[in-house]
Amino acid sequence: MLKLYDFPGAPNPRRVKIFLAEKGIEYESIHCDITKLEQKQDWFLKMNPSGKIPVLELEDGRHLGESVAICRYLEAICPEPNLFGQDPFELGHIEMRNRQIELELWSQVGTSWVNGPIVSRAGRFTPNLAAKETSDRNVRKYYERLDAELEANPYLAGERFTVADITLLTAIDFAASLVDLKPEDNLAQLWQWHARVSARSSVSAS
Amino acid sequence: MLKLYDFPGAPNPRRVKIFLAEKGIEYESIHCDITKLEQKQDWFLKMNPSGKIPVLELEDGRHLGESVAICRYLEAICPEPNLFGQDPFELGHIEMRNRQIELELWSQVGTSWVNGPIVSRAGRFTPNLAAKETSDRNVRKYYERLDAELEANPYLAGERFTVADITLLTAIDFAASLVDLKPEDNLAQLWQWHARVSARSSVSAS
Repeated sequence: MLKLYDFPGAPNPRRVKIFLAEKGIEYESIHCDITKLEQKQDWFLKMNPSGKIPVLELEDGRHLGESVAICRYLEAICPEPNLFGQDPFELGHIEMRNRQIELELWSQVGTSWVNGPIVSRAGRFTPNLAAKETSDRNVRKYYERLDAELEANPYLAGERFTVADITLLTAIDFAASLVDLKPEDNLAQLWQWHARVSARSSVSAS
Repeated sequence: MLKLYDFPGAPNPRRVKIFLAEKGIEYESIHCDITKLEQKQDWFLKMNPSGKIPVLELEDGRHLGESVAICRYLEAICPEPNLFGQDPFELGHIEMRNRQIELELWSQVGTSWVNGPIVSRAGRFTPNLAAKETSDRNVRKYYERLDAELEANPYLAGERFTVADITLLTAIDFAASLVDLKPEDNLAQLWQWHARVSARSSVSAS
């Protein structure tokens, strides 16, 4: 059986868990306590030299890190339901939407997180408050862009649920719960999309 | 014919141009002057609301932004030579290597670039020098990791040239020429890899 190195509440493992649930793939969850920096210990670095969760362990003992890389492996071994696209344009378009969320939203949420009070209290990082001010502003502005875009389509990449929706949902839920960057109440399209995606059984279970 | 919105020397269009050359796909290059912020003008934002180059224009008039998304489209319309992987594990592994370079190296090169003297002189951004110090250090440390990893394999994802090598090459060339972050001379494996990849006709032409 596949094994997933995981920590409850961590957003990147959550992406993979939603993806696994969409595919109906069974797996064993292995607890990796990131509050104790287990992901930086030698036994973990042998699986993933980047020292990050999630890591997927295959039945033959090989490992994959990086949530989207794990999802691509899963899409290849279990093509249905399709979450990365089918024809060439859709493959490109979904990748574009997924990357926009990662590079334009997640990157900013991450900057606000590492320079925010929770990481700062852990004492492993000197917060850069000017960087956080900029990234907070960028996140709020990006929410407005998304709200406008979601007027045209029920899902981020068009008519159907894809990996890009998983990436956005986990970004918003993390930003709202742990970085104090909840979208404003007046962003109606964004919140309707959020309710639509959150109602999926794959999401409510992860 | 495919059209690529491009600017000479910009690293992300370069990634796509190397990819196109590897595939032997012909295209028309359209000059987008980013020094005049043409990519932020209305006509451009209609193609790519993120306001970034490269953008690929298809023969039917549709557009794709994000360099890796464009490359995925190109891989789908022209599968050989394969640059993203063939079996499920290789698809995941190449994606992981590509993403590590993007998230762990390119992100830091980008931080050093936007907080460095060239962008600062353009006057559109207040540089955050503490952020640049951290990212400079991260880049140099990452070069050392890569040097050690390239001892085991001739290419970043193993025995053959892939999209991950394109991502790394463009990162290093940009960092060395425009961000003052050239790898140290003593990183022999990294420099041998650099010479091996730079000798490809797809690279020397782009």
